[in-house]
Amino acid sequence: MIILGADPGSQRTGYGAIESDGRRHRLLAQGVIAPAARAGLPEKLRQIHAQLAELIARLQPGTLAVEGVFHAANTRSALVLGHVRGVVLLAGAQAGLPVSEFSPATIKSAVTGNGRAEKSQVAFMVTRLLGLPAAQPAGDATDALAVALCHAHQLLRPGGPA
Amino acid sequence: MIILGADPGSQRTGYGAIESDGRRHRLLAQGVIAPAARAGLPEKLRQIHAQLAELIARLQPGTLAVEGVFHAANTRSALVLGHVRGVVLLAGAQAGLPVSEFSPATIKSAVTGNGRAEKSQVAFMVTRLLGLPAAQPAGDATDALAVALCHAHQLLRPGGPA
Repeated sequence: MIILGADPGSQRTGYGAIESDGRRHRLLAQGVIAPAARAGLPEKLRQIHAQLAELIARLQPGTLAVEGVFHAANTRSALVLGHVRGVVLLAGAQAGLPVSEFSPATIKSAVTGNGRAEKSQVAFMVTRLLGLPAAQPAGDATDALAVALCHAHQLLRPGGPA
Repeated sequence: MIILGADPGSQRTGYGAIESDGRRHRLLAQGVIAPAARAGLPEKLRQIHAQLAELIARLQPGTLAVEGVFHAANTRSALVLGHVRGVVLLAGAQAGLPVSEFSPATIKSAVTGNGRAEKSQVAFMVTRLLGLPAAQPAGDATDALAVALCHAHQLLRPGGPA
């Protein structure tokens, strides 16, 4: 199945799409949605939503996997991050996709075996698991691919996502 | 001009639309969007966004006024509220509307003269300012109408919203 992973952030939202049967994984797309820095928040949200909706229409994923947030530095940053996550989850729901959320520790554990792995270690394992020729720089896109791989690993679990 | 006010909440989102020249105000619509309680968050966001987009298409407002949030009880509630606000701001931006935000104190002050007014006093003044025959029960819809009236009062200010 095709899995679209997303890592929403207040400034940049990473995305990564893979095709996976739970054992073998293939990279389809990766990138970062970075709305115009000078735009107001409503316009930024519009750009993020439009680009994600376009990605979904083009890639036709069977599911959307999003990094969950279970704590934030403060209420202000939680509020801003919530706005971005809101339009990301909306794009999934509008396309009729099941949306699954995974905690950062679950994602790190799934791709590196260590729930407290460094960002660079996550990027290294993303490169290896997807059989990419060149090491991927650690960033929002590799984080999003890690979310997609985390979902993929659960495909083989009894009772895991269908 | 037609002003659509919105009061986003994690469970219920109030809305209220008025026509105003800054002095005289007329009620056009009011209500509450309450997504199915048993739905997951992505589906709730889809319902809120769809109903708000339908309202905008039907009422053709010239602007969207939203209650701003400048503090929240904790990061968890800020995050959930942020999701709802995200799809509300998105609906405004997608319709090309200017979106203005007002703090709770600014809204209360604009309609009652007291930035710390009780919810019931806000509802009382909303009833009076809109010349409604019956007193409106205090709730999410009167809060949303108060946001719209707050915006309306600024129409006459030099440098206020156009």
